[in-house]
Amino acid sequence: MSESGSRWFEDYTPGRVFELGPVSVGEAEILSFGRAYDPQTIHTDPVAARSGPFGGVIASGWQTLGLMMRVFATGYLDVSNLGSPGVDEVRWPNPVRPDDELWVTITVIDARPSASKPDRGVVRSRVEVRNKDRQPVATLTVVNLILCRPKTVSSTG
Amino acid sequence: MSESGSRWFEDYTPGRVFELGPVSVGEAEILSFGRAYDPQTIHTDPVAARSGPFGGVIASGWQTLGLMMRVFATGYLDVSNLGSPGVDEVRWPNPVRPDDELWVTITVIDARPSASKPDRGVVRSRVEVRNKDRQPVATLTVVNLILCRPKTVSSTG
Repeated sequence: MSESGSRWFEDYTPGRVFELGPVSVGEAEILSFGRAYDPQTIHTDPVAARSGPFGGVIASGWQTLGLMMRVFATGYLDVSNLGSPGVDEVRWPNPVRPDDELWVTITVIDARPSASKPDRGVVRSRVEVRNKDRQPVATLTVVNLILCRPKTVSSTG
Repeated sequence: MSESGSRWFEDYTPGRVFELGPVSVGEAEILSFGRAYDPQTIHTDPVAARSGPFGGVIASGWQTLGLMMRVFATGYLDVSNLGSPGVDEVRWPNPVRPDDELWVTITVIDARPSASKPDRGVVRSRVEVRNKDRQPVATLTVVNLILCRPKTVSSTG
């Protein structure tokens, strides 16, 4: 993205909504993530998972958030992102199953200039992730530190 | 783990502390996770990251939580875990860098029987992840639904 097309703190106006996706996930990726990061049979063993609480293998909740982050990073954040101090109120109301498709809705909740550093602001965003049946599979609130648009030197000023 | 050695709701007593780790993470795994789930240059491009806000590549915060979950799943949870409705107050106070080693401290905050289902309870746990210099890199509160210990039929009863 060219700098003129980049997104800066000033572009995250409260109420603005971003619709992103779909993000697809297959059984192989679910099992691979589960074995690496969340080794419980509901994420790693399709046969054992069949008699488990979800009747089959489901994605780790952390992978659901990673799949969300894939499009949050590319379609919402920009070079102006300085990082995230944290997230709040993560909920996983429904499981993600193999061959699901995720859709991500991001709403800017508030954006306030930093009290200590004039070159940046704090943006809070509400994130909803839904599956292909439009059921919610993850919701959370994310905080990001975002750089302000660089000041350009006016040739007439 | 044999059933007699398994951990059930009754074993998660408030105040009990579990120390787990270390979990090691190298640059290749950081870049691989970043490319798949958090494609920002600070997680994917060691050269570009050098001039970024952290002076080098760092792990995605979601990967830090995945690395935590690797030992949370194997050293804290057991077959009695029915899943997690969510987590709260996730904070990433310091970055995780290549060749770091993570140590995880889990404290049972509270454990209450389910109001609607007598076979399970709700356990809230406080989790602190520290790097090899003992600086905190992630803190969060996790909720899990945990099965109660199966009732055994007494041969004399």
